[in-house]
Amino acid sequence: MEFRIERDTLGEMKVPADKYWGAQTQRSKENFPIGTEKMPIEVIHAFAQLKKAAAMANEQLGKLPAEKKQAIVQACDEIIQGKWDGHFPLVVWQTGSGTQSNMNVNEVVARRGSEIAGKEKLIHPNDDVNMSQSSNDTFPTAMHIAAYHEAAQRLKPALVQFKKTLEQKEKEYMHVIKIGRTHLQDATPLTLGQEISGWRAMIDRSMEMLEQAQQYLLRLAIGGTAVGTGINADPSFGHKVAEQLEKQTGYRFESSPNKFHALTSHDELVYFHGALKALAADMMKIANDIRWLASGPRSGIGELTIPANEPGSSIMPGKVNPTQSEAMTMVAAQIFGNDATVGFAASQGNFELNVFKPVIIYNVLQSIRLLAEGIQSFDKRCAAGLEANKEVIQQLMERSLMLVTALNPHIGYEKAAEIAKLAHKEGLTLKEAAVQTGYLTAKQYDEWIDPSKMVNL
Amino acid sequence: MEFRIERDTLGEMKVPADKYWGAQTQRSKENFPIGTEKMPIEVIHAFAQLKKAAAMANEQLGKLPAEKKQAIVQACDEIIQGKWDGHFPLVVWQTGSGTQSNMNVNEVVARRGSEIAGKEKLIHPNDDVNMSQSSNDTFPTAMHIAAYHEAAQRLKPALVQFKKTLEQKEKEYMHVIKIGRTHLQDATPLTLGQEISGWRAMIDRSMEMLEQAQQYLLRLAIGGTAVGTGINADPSFGHKVAEQLEKQTGYRFESSPNKFHALTSHDELVYFHGALKALAADMMKIANDIRWLASGPRSGIGELTIPANEPGSSIMPGKVNPTQSEAMTMVAAQIFGNDATVGFAASQGNFELNVFKPVIIYNVLQSIRLLAEGIQSFDKRCAAGLEANKEVIQQLMERSLMLVTALNPHIGYEKAAEIAKLAHKEGLTLKEAAVQTGYLTAKQYDEWIDPSKMVNL
Amino acid sequence: MEFRIERDTLGEMKVPADKYWGAQTQRSKENFPIGTEKMPIEVIHAFAQLKKAAAMANEQLGKLPAEKKQAIVQACDEIIQGKWDGHFPLVVWQTGSGTQSNMNVNEVVARRGSEIAGKEKLIHPNDDVNMSQSSNDTFPTAMHIAAYHEAAQRLKPALVQFKKTLEQKEKEYMHVIKIGRTHLQDATPLTLGQEISGWRAMIDRSMEMLEQAQQYLLRLAIGGTAVGTGINADPSFGHKVAEQLEKQTGYRFESSPNKFHALTSHDELVYFHGALKALAADMMKIANDIRWLASGPRSGIGELTIPANEPGSSIMPGKVNPTQSEAMTMVAAQIFGNDATVGFAASQGNFELNVFKPVIIYNVLQSIRLLAEGIQSFDKRCAAGLEANKEVIQQLMERSLMLVTALNPHIGYEKAAEIAKLAHKEGLTLKEAAVQTGYLTAKQYDEWIDPSKMVNL
Amino acid sequence: MEFRIERDTLGEMKVPADKYWGAQTQRSKENFPIGTEKMPIEVIHAFAQLKKAAAMANEQLGKLPAEKKQAIVQACDEIIQGKWDGHFPLVVWQTGSGTQSNMNVNEVVARRGSEIAGKEKLIHPNDDVNMSQSSNDTFPTAMHIAAYHEAAQRLKPALVQFKKTLEQKEKEYMHVIKIGRTHLQDATPLTLGQEISGWRAMIDRSMEMLEQAQQYLLRLAIGGTAVGTGINADPSFGHKVAEQLEKQTGYRFESSPNKFHALTSHDELVYFHGALKALAADMMKIANDIRWLASGPRSGIGELTIPANEPGSSIMPGKVNPTQSEAMTMVAAQIFGNDATVGFAASQGNFELNVFKPVIIYNVLQSIRLLAEGIQSFDKRCAAGLEANKEVIQQLMERSLMLVTALNPHIGYEKAAEIAKLAHKEGLTLKEAAVQTGYLTAKQYDEWIDPSKMVNL
Repeated sequence: MEFRIERDTLGEMKVPADKYWGAQTQRSKENFPIGTEKMPIEVIHAFAQLKKAAAMANEQLGKLPAEKKQAIVQACDEIIQGKWDGHFPLVVWQTGSGTQSNMNVNEVVARRGSEIAGKEKLIHPNDDVNMSQSSNDTFPTAMHIAAYHEAAQRLKPALVQFKKTLEQKEKEYMHVIKIGRTHLQDATPLTLGQEISGWRAMIDRSMEMLEQAQQYLLRLAIGGTAVGTGINADPSFGHKVAEQLEKQTGYRFESSPNKFHALTSHDELVYFHGALKALAADMMKIANDIRWLASGPRSGIGELTIPANEPGSSIMPGKVNPTQSEAMTMVAAQIFGNDATVGFAASQGNFELNVFKPVIIYNVLQSIRLLAEGIQSFDKRCAAGLEANKEVIQQLMERSLMLVTALNPHIGYEKAAEIAKLAHKEGLTLKEAAVQTGYLTAKQYDEWIDPSKMVNL
Repeated sequence: MEFRIERDTLGEMKVPADKYWGAQTQRSKENFPIGTEKMPIEVIHAFAQLKKAAAMANEQLGKLPAEKKQAIVQACDEIIQGKWDGHFPLVVWQTGSGTQSNMNVNEVVARRGSEIAGKEKLIHPNDDVNMSQSSNDTFPTAMHIAAYHEAAQRLKPALVQFKKTLEQKEKEYMHVIKIGRTHLQDATPLTLGQEISGWRAMIDRSMEMLEQAQQYLLRLAIGGTAVGTGINADPSFGHKVAEQLEKQTGYRFESSPNKFHALTSHDELVYFHGALKALAADMMKIANDIRWLASGPRSGIGELTIPANEPGSSIMPGKVNPTQSEAMTMVAAQIFGNDATVGFAASQGNFELNVFKPVIIYNVLQSIRLLAEGIQSFDKRCAAGLEANKEVIQQLMERSLMLVTALNPHIGYEKAAEIAKLAHKEGLTLKEAAVQTGYLTAKQYDEWIDPSKMVNL
Repeated sequence: MEFRIERDTLGEMKVPADKYWGAQTQRSKENFPIGTEKMPIEVIHAFAQLKKAAAMANEQLGKLPAEKKQAIVQACDEIIQGKWDGHFPLVVWQTGSGTQSNMNVNEVVARRGSEIAGKEKLIHPNDDVNMSQSSNDTFPTAMHIAAYHEAAQRLKPALVQFKKTLEQKEKEYMHVIKIGRTHLQDATPLTLGQEISGWRAMIDRSMEMLEQAQQYLLRLAIGGTAVGTGINADPSFGHKVAEQLEKQTGYRFESSPNKFHALTSHDELVYFHGALKALAADMMKIANDIRWLASGPRSGIGELTIPANEPGSSIMPGKVNPTQSEAMTMVAAQIFGNDATVGFAASQGNFELNVFKPVIIYNVLQSIRLLAEGIQSFDKRCAAGLEANKEVIQQLMERSLMLVTALNPHIGYEKAAEIAKLAHKEGLTLKEAAVQTGYLTAKQYDEWIDPSKMVNL
Repeated sequence: MEFRIERDTLGEMKVPADKYWGAQTQRSKENFPIGTEKMPIEVIHAFAQLKKAAAMANEQLGKLPAEKKQAIVQACDEIIQGKWDGHFPLVVWQTGSGTQSNMNVNEVVARRGSEIAGKEKLIHPNDDVNMSQSSNDTFPTAMHIAAYHEAAQRLKPALVQFKKTLEQKEKEYMHVIKIGRTHLQDATPLTLGQEISGWRAMIDRSMEMLEQAQQYLLRLAIGGTAVGTGINADPSFGHKVAEQLEKQTGYRFESSPNKFHALTSHDELVYFHGALKALAADMMKIANDIRWLASGPRSGIGELTIPANEPGSSIMPGKVNPTQSEAMTMVAAQIFGNDATVGFAASQGNFELNVFKPVIIYNVLQSIRLLAEGIQSFDKRCAAGLEANKEVIQQLMERSLMLVTALNPHIGYEKAAEIAKLAHKEGLTLKEAAVQTGYLTAKQYDEWIDPSKMVNL
């Protein structure tokens, strides 16, 4: 491999000749040989948006010459397009302020910008690309941009589509009456469509909560610089950058009303991740319900059939497993752990800075992505292909004793209980037991026990 | 002890003669000798609100005679006032639907109601008190009522008061310039008031997030009865009860738009607890900052003095410890654990019911109370008594090298770094080092380095 | 209420006249009006063991007169017997070193000891009861004593008994062949006894892991005093106290080899709680299996019957719910949260002390107790009464397609899969499908497919 | 890209021509486009060890011809050497039994084995490579092999080396007396070496606990096949494979005594991860202590100097941050989250299988690697370069009031407290205050207060 020599305030570093990063990136790469988890590329792209917006703002403020601004903007656009993804080699487990990834971006933008302008070292990573900024305000800004973008562009469409699928199934099966189950025990009937409507309502609720929680991510730390006072930046800088970012992305960013908060608290990401956790809990429940309803095929519940996407087992031929439910529930398990990490990390700030930023954003972005892609896959390969086994559903409903509840208003709670117990003990049908007790006639039974009236459609 | 005999569908039970509960409560008491954690009394009081509202609604619907309604309402009012707190002996670790606590309330209301009316067994626990209801919709309704009430009446006032204290300190110390600290290292200056404003902004943010998250708790499961279909209840029952509850409490309750969701998902409580966790993370940070700033008194940072509330140590005389910070941060640790429990429990619903309701509400209410009372105590006994050690603050600021940052715009990043390193290496003041390098004169130094300009007030 | 005046180094305090605690306890009581969670009485009893042992050691070292020793020992014995439980009013949310509970014990022992000796103020809480000690070494010592004791006396017997029950069921049902289930799908058969043996093996494994993990709790901080150096204590004091504690309790305590570790790290309790979590995960699984196998009764799996301990529902007569499983799994959910709290708290030590001790021991002891009593109840009221529904078990096994696996060695994986698919598609029995494909004869089928051979007993 | 056609029981699949995987792998790749987290390569290598051992055992049992065995063994050896790492493309979020990764290995071994033998399709993925096995017993076996190996080869050496560093520092600084700190407040003195010995003891303890906990991983599920009964495998198969694995790896593997447990419970990994969490909590504490002791350089504690590995800040020249502590503590935060995920996942087994296996092993292996590499980096780039600032240490100790504790045995607790308060209030030295009270003479002071005696070396 060929190298070139770069230098920073600590001395010289050998950098691979074909890479655009500089000395500080190289130093970090060598100093943190920990794990394989790279700083998420979404953070890098968010940084490029930010550096572009900062260059625009600095030019407006008369601090950055147009030539430099132009070069920086173009370099950033290329990064946003993904052209330089291979030039951001740093891992999550670095400086807790994300300084080194900020410098990585500064260095790549400076080098590529100079190249674009055709002037060697025209752009200085610190003096130009990082002008009016600090890692301490840029990194949390990039965290918010990245998380908001991913929530809006990746997670929301997955939820919209999944909701559509559920609505369609809800409608399709609205009149398929089935036994209800509470405590895993037979309960009064409902329709399959009603049951599915509960799942759909979970997605509704989550979309509502996520929409709300992600608004907080629109408030940006930029302008706070090193400790929140905005030292070395124009007082209007934060607002100008937020405005410019809105132009670039369409998201209604604003400068955070208190920069001391913005550098040192990540309450907003904890709260937002709480909404992700609520969604994960619901997806756990939905995926579990589906696999239980599809259990069997012959010795389980078997009310639903799910698509056979792959051979189920290496030893048991013919078996088709609820693998999409399994992937989905493993994702949920991961989100629960991530939530613990995010909360812990957010609690550990000291004075003017929280230095657990990379681990927070790594977990937040992993959660968003896993939920989005997990739900997408679950939707497409499982939910969309759900089919009701109407015959089984009918059988299981009729076999149940719980229709007895319909007798409560007619003969009271205790007599109804007596009938159910008799049927249970003697292996009778409900009707047989009812008549045998003498509390009602067969005719009354048929009149009073009508599952279709019990579901209150 | 004297007993009376009560019976339920399983047979006879001996109940302490002076207790108002009945056979089912007694049975549960004997069947679940697990732990010491009682069903929180706040849930019981919320149940009483609900049973009262249900009686009103049932009377309006012509299902409950006025005499019975009247007796139920009065019994409930007495429970709400706390007169019967000793009659709810059940623990959290019972049926996962909370059925037994619902029955406990039904039994006590029935017995006390009959007594009020002066007619033995006038009121039946199931047929009258539980009319149009099931444990499956009443328990989650009581969960929401209790959590909303506690958030509104217990937590919010504590936050309002704590915020006032911080605002006052923020104002008082707005012009006390001090060294900033990032990565625990000396950084550019800010004022103590600015630092405190960051804490205050955390409380602002949490109040905003809590306010939002608790709106979801206004949606009530009532009307869903056993499986969400509302079997055995009038279709208008849920709305009527919500309306009545609003009259009783002033909170804008409404009947949940999807009862299948309301019985089986607790996404709303997971989300709400996420806001509690965000607050806990902030309180961890604030309490940590304060104890570190008050560390010493002679060999730590020592910028703040906190009140001496008790003798600090059984062996080291004269020592005063940051005990309120310690209580506060232990509370935060508890909230983090509770958050894990709530998320886990909420994910474990099956079909038409989630049977982890008691453990969820126990943790939610513990979190609210601990945060509220922890913050109240921290506010009153620590924050309100904070005092700045202005002399120490001044010394530490002047000793620092980080004022050098102010030179960046004048001589560039690298030369400024050189000065700082020289001062560090030789033990010089910044000014001495600056002049020695020849990059600037003493006069320029005094002009350029002015901490009061660096804080951007 | 009547009061007496007590004083500490900060001044006078009014103490209820009938209480044995002194000024520092009273001060703490007033300074920490947070929550309802009392310092667990097990910690207080452990403290009394420790104070007794310390008095013996101090006398041996010639530092404490026999008269004082005698009075202290007797007072401690009374506390251990539970005679003074009402005199320890402090909550968990106090000083993070537990100083105030240490002082509470010192004060009660001093007052009661003086009373026993018949000499007012004979015993001084600090100079005598706390002699050679600090909160910083006594509190972690009491934590270990209490946790070890509870693990040994409360949890272990519950596990031993539960294991016996499982062994008996395992034996009873060793030859009842049933369908296996993997991915919730029908799989190759096993016997019910084999299935239960898996649960029993979980308890075996947990007992082994707990036994091992709790050994670390035998190492005591005592002797370290304020910062681990043992200042103001004789170098032999820690060992002497450990020896004496062994005599008193029968547990093989020893003085921790490194007191700096013992005061500031709680890795041993984190590790021990990891074993509790492993047990909780297993109990979750066992309780889930049982309620699923008992689901129905008519529209679920229904292979098992569980005892009907209470009326199941307030609206659905005749329904019997798996309430012991529900209590057990809620306990598991609590243990998962407690585990998060314990780990978090243990990570937050600084320098010579971790000040999250009360919250750690509160959670550890809650976990032990809930697991012990939850398992005991589950064992007695659910596991011990399990009964196999042999008819259902037989039906479900014969209905399944998965016996086809037995054909793999005879006709190969792919042909076996073909048969299963044919049966599935056409609704045939396996035998019909097998013969129809022509891959084997009916006679070969009967010979090759013999469930009793497939379970490898 | 060029493709070839492969088929499984569900039909044809297009596989990239240069890849060795087959139809089932390809199908999984297309069915689970979720996240970027690949099945850890350590699991694949463990699988290759297992497939090799299984081939040996099958040959010994007379079930696999020597030619096939030979080809399988060689193919496995190549995989173990890392030659085929690019042929295992599947993600973690797949079937919860890991079936698809088992098939991926089966397919690659079959194809490469056939190639080695020079006979197309000599080796069948299911019939030969997977002979006597199921995903359900191979995947948990590979989990244990991989986790044990990584703990032994990656984590342990890192701990051994870190311990050496600490021992060396402990020795070097054993006589440097410094102020102790409890509650962040000045306390009685100890030596820096003693303080470091506490850290070293944490590593000792963790090594002991890990060593113990990882023994459980030596018990392997292999031999249980589909549901634990060992169907389609020789009863001796599990033992033979374990023996063979011991020969291959040197680790003392054994066949698990209860295979039903081994397939469906992961209590052993939960317990093992509890030991990882205990280590993480300790590393959090150590890394925190170091960064606090190195805080400043001028306005913090400043007792230690840590290596300057990189320029600290993009805006503040001259600043050197505790970046290795930051990476280490972020790793700890991740481990806490992983622990929650592992516990949750392990609790969710049903009947004969737990289908959260991939997410469990992914988290366990991430935790091991991050701890190992994080500690290695922290050791090499921070701990090894620690230096005591003896001058600062001396100043801070002398300034403190807490030496007063040494007076307790001479003048009693209350008088000593009085002296300390006087010094504190009047800004006196301890000696001045002591003499002023008249409780002792200057000469007595010098005699009684000798820090070197207070540390009890």
